[in-house]
Amino acid sequence: MIKHINVKSGARVDLIDITPEVEGLVKESGVQEGVCHLYVPHTTAGITINEGADPSVRRDIIHSLQGLVPRDAGYTHLEGNSDAHIKSSLLGASALVMIEQGRLQLGTWQSIFFCEFDGPRHRRVAVKIVAG
Amino acid sequence: MIKHINVKSGARVDLIDITPEVEGLVKESGVQEGVCHLYVPHTTAGITINEGADPSVRRDIIHSLQGLVPRDAGYTHLEGNSDAHIKSSLLGASALVMIEQGRLQLGTWQSIFFCEFDGPRHRRVAVKIVAG
Amino acid sequence: MIKHINVKSGARVDLIDITPEVEGLVKESGVQEGVCHLYVPHTTAGITINEGADPSVRRDIIHSLQGLVPRDAGYTHLEGNSDAHIKSSLLGASALVMIEQGRLQLGTWQSIFFCEFDGPRHRRVAVKIVAG
Repeated sequence: MIKHINVKSGARVDLIDITPEVEGLVKESGVQEGVCHLYVPHTTAGITINEGADPSVRRDIIHSLQGLVPRDAGYTHLEGNSDAHIKSSLLGASALVMIEQGRLQLGTWQSIFFCEFDGPRHRRVAVKIVAG
Repeated sequence: MIKHINVKSGARVDLIDITPEVEGLVKESGVQEGVCHLYVPHTTAGITINEGADPSVRRDIIHSLQGLVPRDAGYTHLEGNSDAHIKSSLLGASALVMIEQGRLQLGTWQSIFFCEFDGPRHRRVAVKIVAG
Repeated sequence: MIKHINVKSGARVDLIDITPEVEGLVKESGVQEGVCHLYVPHTTAGITINEGADPSVRRDIIHSLQGLVPRDAGYTHLEGNSDAHIKSSLLGASALVMIEQGRLQLGTWQSIFFCEFDGPRHRRVAVKIVAG
């Protein structure tokens, strides 16, 4: 069964830690061993797993992506958010985390981030937990 | 079981919408709930999920990748397609989409794109649909 | 069950071919048909699938990533490894390869690489093989 996490981004570009919500769904599912699939059904957002402890990492990721894919760079797409589509493809729409003993097997410093590239908006992340 | 989609790219760099073919395989499988895994067995191609409605998005993604990873930049690999290998690693060789009620759970604007970085060529995408 | 591969990187930035170790785990599992999930539990490393035959491809990938995300670029994170975190998000922490007839279904030229971005260090890759 697919569950959804609702996310509210607070800026045009924003990394939002959704680890507690994903962990809650894993617990709720009762699955002890399996794979947690995460999927972003948006074309101007993405998902990444990175350091959650120090907010400066998030800031540096955003700043670096802005430099690599500037907001304005002679794009042809008329909606003015081509940079957000490109960032979405660079980071990707899906991720997976393994589950063991009923818990997400994240590394010590890892958190799961919803990546907003064309906010602020209300968004969703689909979560599918498969035992196995 | 693994199924394959045949793709024929029309340019050196090309994004090709394979959503109808993937949807066809999901329907054929009869799987109502599960995960559709997509895999590109090539090292100078990739896969991404992004906006399919407006072709200008595809064009902007290609243009931006060409800027980030130019065709010629003093690479050491002698085959002259290092840029294609690098783009392949940036976008990735695999993707997943969830299945519910027998249908791919893509977002409203999402399409699945095979990404050619060293064409034109005949290529393949492996598709594995797992119920669960 | 999750298995782990131990990796020892030899430089700050290093791509290490872990295909034989992953193939060994697939064989050990006895799984004939399924999906092999790979996961890096580190925030300054990643995983990619690319050409393994010619080492110059690896070198060009590293060189290109260094150009896109330089070691020093006015980052705010004080540990001095922000570039490694950013590269980790660009390449991603997970990958999947399909299994058929008891073997990884890699393309002819594909190898699986652990990507070190802040070494040299001892690292781990989690491997979960699911039949289906």
